[in-house]
This record gives sequence, C-alpha cells and structure tokens, in this order.
Amino acid sequence: MASADVRAKNIRLVCFDVDGTLTDGRLSFDENGGETKSFHVHDGQGLRLLEDCGIRVALITARNSRIVQARGRDLRLQHVFDGVTDKLAVVHELCAAEGITLDEVAYMGDDYPDLACLQSVGLPACPADALTPIQANALWTSRFNGGHGAAREFCDFILSIQGKDEELLRRFGAP
Amino acid sequence: MASADVRAKNIRLVCFDVDGTLTDGRLSFDENGGETKSFHVHDGQGLRLLEDCGIRVALITARNSRIVQARGRDLRLQHVFDGVTDKLAVVHELCAAEGITLDEVAYMGDDYPDLACLQSVGLPACPADALTPIQANALWTSRFNGGHGAAREFCDFILSIQGKDEELLRRFGAP
Amino acid sequence: MASADVRAKNIRLVCFDVDGTLTDGRLSFDENGGETKSFHVHDGQGLRLLEDCGIRVALITARNSRIVQARGRDLRLQHVFDGVTDKLAVVHELCAAEGITLDEVAYMGDDYPDLACLQSVGLPACPADALTPIQANALWTSRFNGGHGAAREFCDFILSIQGKDEELLRRFGAP
Amino acid sequence: MASADVRAKNIRLVCFDVDGTLTDGRLSFDENGGETKSFHVHDGQGLRLLEDCGIRVALITARNSRIVQARGRDLRLQHVFDGVTDKLAVVHELCAAEGITLDEVAYMGDDYPDLACLQSVGLPACPADALTPIQANALWTSRFNGGHGAAREFCDFILSIQGKDEELLRRFGAP
Repeated sequence: MASADVRAKNIRLVCFDVDGTLTDGRLSFDENGGETKSFHVHDGQGLRLLEDCGIRVALITARNSRIVQARGRDLRLQHVFDGVTDKLAVVHELCAAEGITLDEVAYMGDDYPDLACLQSVGLPACPADALTPIQANALWTSRFNGGHGAAREFCDFILSIQGKDEELLRRFGAP
Repeated sequence: MASADVRAKNIRLVCFDVDGTLTDGRLSFDENGGETKSFHVHDGQGLRLLEDCGIRVALITARNSRIVQARGRDLRLQHVFDGVTDKLAVVHELCAAEGITLDEVAYMGDDYPDLACLQSVGLPACPADALTPIQANALWTSRFNGGHGAAREFCDFILSIQGKDEELLRRFGAP
Repeated sequence: MASADVRAKNIRLVCFDVDGTLTDGRLSFDENGGETKSFHVHDGQGLRLLEDCGIRVALITARNSRIVQARGRDLRLQHVFDGVTDKLAVVHELCAAEGITLDEVAYMGDDYPDLACLQSVGLPACPADALTPIQANALWTSRFNGGHGAAREFCDFILSIQGKDEELLRRFGAP
Repeated sequence: MASADVRAKNIRLVCFDVDGTLTDGRLSFDENGGETKSFHVHDGQGLRLLEDCGIRVALITARNSRIVQARGRDLRLQHVFDGVTDKLAVVHELCAAEGITLDEVAYMGDDYPDLACLQSVGLPACPADALTPIQANALWTSRFNGGHGAAREFCDFILSIQGKDEELLRRFGAP
C-alpha cells in the first residue's frame, strides 16, 4: 500500500464525518430536546484553507442536523450532507459530481459507520481517539482527538505535501 | 471470584448509570434553571450495537431528567428509568421482566449510589474516574473516563467476549 | 503549622468558592447574554455527604449568579452567597451564625479573591489548577482540577479523617 | 532578538485574539443558529489585573460576536473589536489612540490570522496549543492551552516582570 505521503499528493476532495471527527463526540441536549454541538475554530480554519487552495471539502453525517448545515454555511462549504444512511453512496456521488476518482478522495472518520468509506478512498484518516478497528483501516492518524484539531492537522498535512503551505503563510503575512 | 471475561459470556442485560458514567459528570445549568447534559456519540453507538446483537440495555438515574428520557428515545431504548431512589430495586424488576438472573446482568456506575447494584450483579464495571470505593467493587474498569467512551469500551468488551464483534464489523463493511 | 490531617479533625463548616473550584472555570455565554455554568456530579454528592454527616457547607461567590443559588437549592444547602465583595466577612458571619471559630472552618478556593479566606481559616485548600500564590497558601491541595472532582476529594478527605467514611459506605450498601 | 523578559518591561497594551486564545477554540451552536462561547475565569481575572495596574487590554476577533462584546463589558474593557478583517490595522489604531509604539504592545494569538500582528508587536505570545507557524513566531509561549489559563499566565508574567505582582497580592490580603 502506498504511504499517506504519496496518496496525499493527488487528493482533490476531503470528506469529513462530523460527530467524533469534527466534534469531540459530545452530543449535548437540553430539557426541551434542543441539541448543541461544538466545533473547533482550528478545524474550521483548516477546511477554509483547503477550499481556498482549490481542494474541495465535504461534511457527511448520519444524524439529521440543522447545526451541521449551519456550520457548513458558516464555512461557505458547498457539500454538506446530513441524515445520511449510506455514506459511501454519497462519496460516489461526489466523485461523479466533481469528475474525480476515489483515489483522489481523502476521508476522515472515527467509528464503524465510517468503515466502508475508509476502505474505499485513496487516503483514509482518523483522529487519535477513533475506535480501534477504524485506526486499523486508516493510513494517516492525527495526534489530536476529534474536535481538538485532528481535522486541522489533516488539512495542514495535505497542504504541506502538495507544497501549498508556504504560499498560504505568505498570504497571512509571513515574510 | 470469576474473572470479568468469564462473567461477560453470559450477560443478557447491561445497565448504565447516567451522570458520571454516560456523561463526564458535568451538570450544566443556565440562569433560568434549564439543564444540559452531554453524551458521547461513541457510547450511544455502543448501546445500539448491544441491542442490535440481542443484549438488552437499561439506563437508570437518580435524577429526574427529561434529557435522559429523550436520549433513550434517540437510541431507541425500551428501558429508561429516571428519578430512581432505589436502583437495585429497578435491576430486580428488570430481571423479572426479562426472565433473567442477576448473574446475567452487567452494571456500570461511578459513585456511591451505584454501590448496591455493583455488589449484586454478575459483571460490575466502572469508568476510569469512578470513586475509589466503586473501583474496589468493579470487576472491570474502563481505561476511559465517564462520558469519554467508558461505556463504549464496555460494550465492545462484552461483544468481543461473546464473539459478536467480527460479524458486527462485517455489517459495517469489513472484508 | 499543624498538618492538614490534624486540622481536618475539627472542621465543622466547609466553604467553597464557585468558579474554578466547584466549576472548571469556564464561563459560558450565549448571544443574548445568558450564562451557563457546569458543576460536577461527584462534587455535589460530596457536599451532600458532608451535610448528611453534620458538617455544614457554604458556597461563596463574587459573581451575581442565579445559577449558584439554583445549584445550592438542588443540593439543599442553606448557606449560599453570591455577589460577595468581601468573602472573609461572610466567613466571619457564618462562624457567628454557627457558633464556631475560624479553626473549625475549611475553605477551598483557587484565585486571588480567595487569598484572605485561605489565610484565615483552619484548613485552607485548593484544586490542582489553583493559581500559584493560592497553592502556596493551601495546606491541602487536590490532585483533581476545579470542577473535575477537587471538591469531592476534599469532602472525602475530611470525612475519612473524622472516621465517618465507613459508616457512610454502609448506608450505600457496603457490607 | 531581545528576550521576552526584556520586552515585557515596556509593555503598555496587551491585545488578545479571542477564539483559541481566550477560549479553548470551541464554537458551540444550537439548532436555531445560536452560538455559545466559553471563557475562563482565571483569564478574565488576569485581564482585570492588567487594567487595574495601568496596562491597557484589547480584544480583537475576526468573528462577528455579541458574546465578545458582552464579555468585554463584563470585564469593563474599553477596547473590544469584533468582525475585524485586518487585525494589524486595529493594532496600529490602538497605538495611535494610546500614544504608544508597537514596541510597547504585546499580542497573544493562536492561528494564521494572528501572524501579521505577532510579527509586528514588541512581545508576541501564544497558548501552548497554537498552530506550529504561530509558535515559531512567538517570543513567549504559555504552558497552558487557550481558554485554560494561557492568557492569565501571560498577564501574570508581564505583571511580575514589571514588579507589580507583590503589590497586587497585598491588595488581596497577602502579608
């Protein structure tokens, strides 16, 4: 199997599971059934950096969630899918829509429902606290937990392998 | 005393305390008296995996809590008990209702009100951050804290001992 | 100076700062100015155990907070003081009301506004993440951070020194 | 380059980024689009200590946020800027308004949008969990993460270097 470095060179679409990957896995509920989710500002910045460098980003979650849709709008993401029962089918649709192959797709997930996607894409990845069978199927594992910068580290890794990181930093003021 | 591995073979019902076991122990309050609780997506998935494999799950909490009832519905659990003053009585009722013995019951709890249940069931368990006298009464202790995957690790342990884990992973796409 | 063990024998009132001591220091705000605070279920149980064993408990906070008042009612505490500018004055009043001396008072706090109280009471204590000058003035330091069981460990310590822990556990079902 | 100790002697204004610096980076959303942010009570106390000792404090955030404005009022801060696209321009305006030079400004930030400010001020600082390129540009790095006391440690460092810490503690009751 090619290394994560080799795979990262060709990535044109990065898909993220939400709960446990872009969040720390907490599902917060109030007494009226209202739900709250917490995202990390570093991760959101990473997703924007990918898109600003021409790499597409998708959020794919099994839960019905207006919160995920709102977070997607906040980050100006075009591809946000909630209430998904077959995540791999969504990845296939995205490939068709973007005109790319599964080899050009990265996927980050943390639990069993992400397994089929991780086994199909070119660059499967997971947070440090992913379930054991998920870690066994990931080619790249973050040193951070979900919701604590795992996604950002993955974005930075891909941007670095593709040689886009120095140009990015110059945009933010690096000499 | 038989080891946790031996006891896990016969478990047909797994009971969970809520605060400090399925949550990280935080009780969040707003200025109007509203309460928020946070559950972990990994734990919820674990409870579903148990039920999907024919092992019954019960939530038992001393606090009155519409949140726990809602979380139970979210996970499609039949046995959810809040406002409980005598947790052991509930466990006895569950045994009668399910037609099983205490030896076939596992219980995970973290604080003194769980002590009587832990001393009575076949497989007493606790999260890594349970109070010391609780840890002394547990046959199985998670390496994770309450609300951070302790319950999931316990579910995965039971499913693995009962030989149901590989079939489960195949359902999610493992080869 | 007498050791914490010696001092703990005579304690009849335990005072707790709130933010950073009974909480992890987070002050959460929504866009309408609403505030949320998180307490730990272990700490609340500890405060109840003290009261149930005849040791009085007081909450003393500088912030105006309906949340602290509500948490006090939830725990059936009589002594809850918010919006306090002079915490030591409150401790003096409590001594007069309870007919006890400062030597019989324990105080747990984490930041500069707690300094005067810590320097005056019989048993000054702090969470593991208290500010350095506070730690220097504490006779007993928890191995847990504020809001993560520091208060509970302090309650259990006092109950153990006063020989009330085994009777307590028996009430919860220990043989 | 002069050491952080030397630079800290002349600081008259300390600017803080908000998300990831004064918070732990979590952006919490409910289903109605409402947002919640969490600040640490230690950090807030540190900002007040600076102001009480005559060192000005400013909050500068890229996000539009009524929460940050409210937190600023809560801490009685005059300089609170949200919805900022060019943070360095705000720092320049503050220098003009306060009649000071960039050498007399400290700035604490954690992500790429803080880079230009960190490269321009006299004392650039960051939390322990700042992104790597940010850490490379900081002269002072906290041992605490953002939202967990990084800002407070920075405040205490400056006050200590300027010899204002002992007087401060005496105000709070130290002998």
